[in-house]
Amino acid sequence: MQYALTTTVNAPFDRALTATREALADEGFGVLSEIDLAGTLKAKVDADLDPYVILGACRPQLAEQAVAHEPSIGLLLPCNVVVRADGAARSVVEALDPDMMVGVTDNDRLKDVASDARTRLDNALASLPSRVS
Amino acid sequence: MQYALTTTVNAPFDRALTATREALADEGFGVLSEIDLAGTLKAKVDADLDPYVILGACRPQLAEQAVAHEPSIGLLLPCNVVVRADGAARSVVEALDPDMMVGVTDNDRLKDVASDARTRLDNALASLPSRVS
Repeated sequence: MQYALTTTVNAPFDRALTATREALADEGFGVLSEIDLAGTLKAKVDADLDPYVILGACRPQLAEQAVAHEPSIGLLLPCNVVVRADGAARSVVEALDPDMMVGVTDNDRLKDVASDARTRLDNALASLPSRVS
Repeated sequence: MQYALTTTVNAPFDRALTATREALADEGFGVLSEIDLAGTLKAKVDADLDPYVILGACRPQLAEQAVAHEPSIGLLLPCNVVVRADGAARSVVEALDPDMMVGVTDNDRLKDVASDARTRLDNALASLPSRVS
């Protein structure tokens, strides 16, 4: 099952993270949570990961509809967007593909919400190269 | 696809939330994020949801292994645990079924990690009735 929308940008991690935050905001997503996974795993189990941050993106209008159609959908919300370093000069940015929510829940009433979210996330990822250039 | 481990407890929302936090801690999960979805949707789009909180549970030892096996797995981390009111005296507590990560990613190397996480989450949910009694 495809679960990730992915792009690679020619920018170091910090710049990619800033650009991703801006891109999500421009597509109407708030960021409800931000987890520094690399920092957390370093602190907790002394693991050495390349920079790796998980942003929890949420468009409230869509979340409201999703919960109305599928009360348990909070298990897959907010929509995670991962920014991670791929060496010093490149970064991978990926978003959880909202269409997977339809497949996982087997609930067709989520289709329109997922489609809307997917278009916005696609747009956000597509805008990254120009934002970091 | 089954994506939720679910239980219903005879306790009001606040007590269920406290008990869930304790149960997760006792099974070795930290809570990396906590989203008051009902409060957020009220503030942002004036939606009236019953109390609904999303806890982001993470056992660092398992997250480290998961990322090593599947670099994009952060899209499904931390493992969400939803606590939501079901009337004034009952609450639903559900966790994202870690086994769905194996299915969604089609990566069998996640099986052991998922199995470990699932056992711990099952234990946490099973402990809730005695914690709220």
